[in-house]
Amino acid sequence: MNVKSALPQSHIDALASLGLELAAAGRVQILKHYRREFTIEDKPDLTPVTIADRNAEAAIRKIISQKQPNHGVMGEEYGNDRTDAEFVWVLDPIDGTKSFMTGKPLFGCLIALCQWGRPILGVMDMPALDEVWLGGQGLPATLNGRPVRVRNCSALDQAVVYATTPDMFLGPDQLAFARVKNRVKYILYGADCYGYATVAAGWADAVVEASLKPYDYLACAAVVTAAGGYAADWNGKPLTLASADKVVMSGSVEMGQIIVKTLQS
Amino acid sequence: MNVKSALPQSHIDALASLGLELAAAGRVQILKHYRREFTIEDKPDLTPVTIADRNAEAAIRKIISQKQPNHGVMGEEYGNDRTDAEFVWVLDPIDGTKSFMTGKPLFGCLIALCQWGRPILGVMDMPALDEVWLGGQGLPATLNGRPVRVRNCSALDQAVVYATTPDMFLGPDQLAFARVKNRVKYILYGADCYGYATVAAGWADAVVEASLKPYDYLACAAVVTAAGGYAADWNGKPLTLASADKVVMSGSVEMGQIIVKTLQS
Repeated sequence: MNVKSALPQSHIDALASLGLELAAAGRVQILKHYRREFTIEDKPDLTPVTIADRNAEAAIRKIISQKQPNHGVMGEEYGNDRTDAEFVWVLDPIDGTKSFMTGKPLFGCLIALCQWGRPILGVMDMPALDEVWLGGQGLPATLNGRPVRVRNCSALDQAVVYATTPDMFLGPDQLAFARVKNRVKYILYGADCYGYATVAAGWADAVVEASLKPYDYLACAAVVTAAGGYAADWNGKPLTLASADKVVMSGSVEMGQIIVKTLQS
Repeated sequence: MNVKSALPQSHIDALASLGLELAAAGRVQILKHYRREFTIEDKPDLTPVTIADRNAEAAIRKIISQKQPNHGVMGEEYGNDRTDAEFVWVLDPIDGTKSFMTGKPLFGCLIALCQWGRPILGVMDMPALDEVWLGGQGLPATLNGRPVRVRNCSALDQAVVYATTPDMFLGPDQLAFARVKNRVKYILYGADCYGYATVAAGWADAVVEASLKPYDYLACAAVVTAAGGYAADWNGKPLTLASADKVVMSGSVEMGQIIVKTLQS
C-alpha cells in the first residue's frame, strides 16, 4: 500500500457513492435500448457500438464533469480527458456489446476509479440482471450491498476458469492459453465481464483473458481484489492504467501465481 | 404435417399447461440450490451433475406419472421409461450445469413433448432469469406469455451465430464448423440453451451445435419453429427423438439451409 495514496475512509465512501450514481445513470440509458430496435455500427476495429453505449457513457461523463470537474476520464466511446489527473475514471459503458445486441443479459457497465493510475474503486453494473457489484480500497466487495468473497481453490486441476472466447488469444497467446486450458478442470466461455463477478463471489476460480483494454478489466480488478482475490497481468504485475492487454484474476492468490507461471512456461 | 398426428387445439393447450406446470415444479427445486453450497459429482461421461439436476427431474417425473401415467419419459438424469409410447416427455432438468455451478444465470430447464418421436411442444424455463419460453404445434412462441418471432436475415455474412463452445466440435465437425464460422459476421460462445432463445426472439440469427443429446435440443426446436424458424440436423432433416448429436437452428429457413450446405461442403 502506497502511504502517499491512502485516502481517508470518508473520501473512499463518497467516491463509492459517486460510482454507484454513475452506474445508475448508465443503466437507465442502457435499458432504454435493450431488446429494442437499435442501429449497430461497426467501429474501425470492427467491434460493434450502439446508441446505448454512447448515451450511457455520455450520461456518466456529464455527472463526473459536474461533481468532480478535476477528475480525468478515459472512456471506450469518447476517449481521454485529463488522464494525467490524480483521479481518473475509466469507463466501459457496455462490456459485452455483442451480448447486449443479442438480448443475452450478461453485459455490464464497468466503472473504475484510478488514483495515480492504480484502481482504487470498481463498479460492475449488470443492468439486465439488476445486479451491482462494488469493491475498492478499504471497502468489502458487495453484490447489491451484500458482501461477497472469493473461494480458495489453489489446485489448478480442480479450477473452473472463464474466458470470453478462445478467439481472443492470438499468436503465441494461443499456446500460452492452451497450457492453462489443458491443466484446469473446466474452461468456460462467453461470460463477458460476468466471469470476474463469478470469481469475486467464489463461484468460479479464475479468469484468463487477452486482447483487452484497461476499461475492460480495471473495475473488475478492484472488485476481485476487494473480495480477497488476485488480479495481475500475464507477468504477475498489478494492473494499472498503463497495463497491457492480458490479465489473470483468481480467487486464490496462489492459483493466480500458478496460472501466471503456466502462461509463461 | 402428419394428419394422423394432428391433435385438437384443446388437447395441445392442455399439454402446454402441463408443460408449464412441470417447468414451475423444476424451477422450485433448481432455485433452492442456485448460488448456495451443493455437491458436484462427475458423471461417467465427465459432465457434472448436482443435487439440483436430480431433484428437478424427479419432481417433474412425479407430476407426469400422476397426470399422464401412459406418457413416456426420457430424462438426462433418470433415463428412459416407456419411450415407445405415443407421447414422450424429454427432460434436461439443467441445461448448462457448468453455468449453474458458477452462478451464471444462463442455464435452463428444458422440457419437450414428442408425439411419435417428433417434438410438438417445448418449454425452455430460465429459473434465474425468471423467463419461460414456450412454443409448439398450433401455438405461437412466447416469452412469459408475450409472443416472440424470429428475424429474417438470410445473408450468412450478416449473421450472428451462437455455439456453446468450440470444444464441442470434434474431428471432422471442427472443420465443418470452421467453414461456417469463417463466413458469418460473429460467432458467440457460452449461451447454453439461451442461444436458441435469442434466435426465437429475433435477437440472433442461428445456433450451430454438436455433441448434443435429444434432451438438449428438442424443446428448443419446438420453440424456434413455433417462432417461425428452422430446426434440423446437419443433414437438413427434421429433429426427432432419433436424431443424431448435431443441430442447426436459425431464424430464416433459407439461412438454415445455407448453413447445412456450408457444413456439408
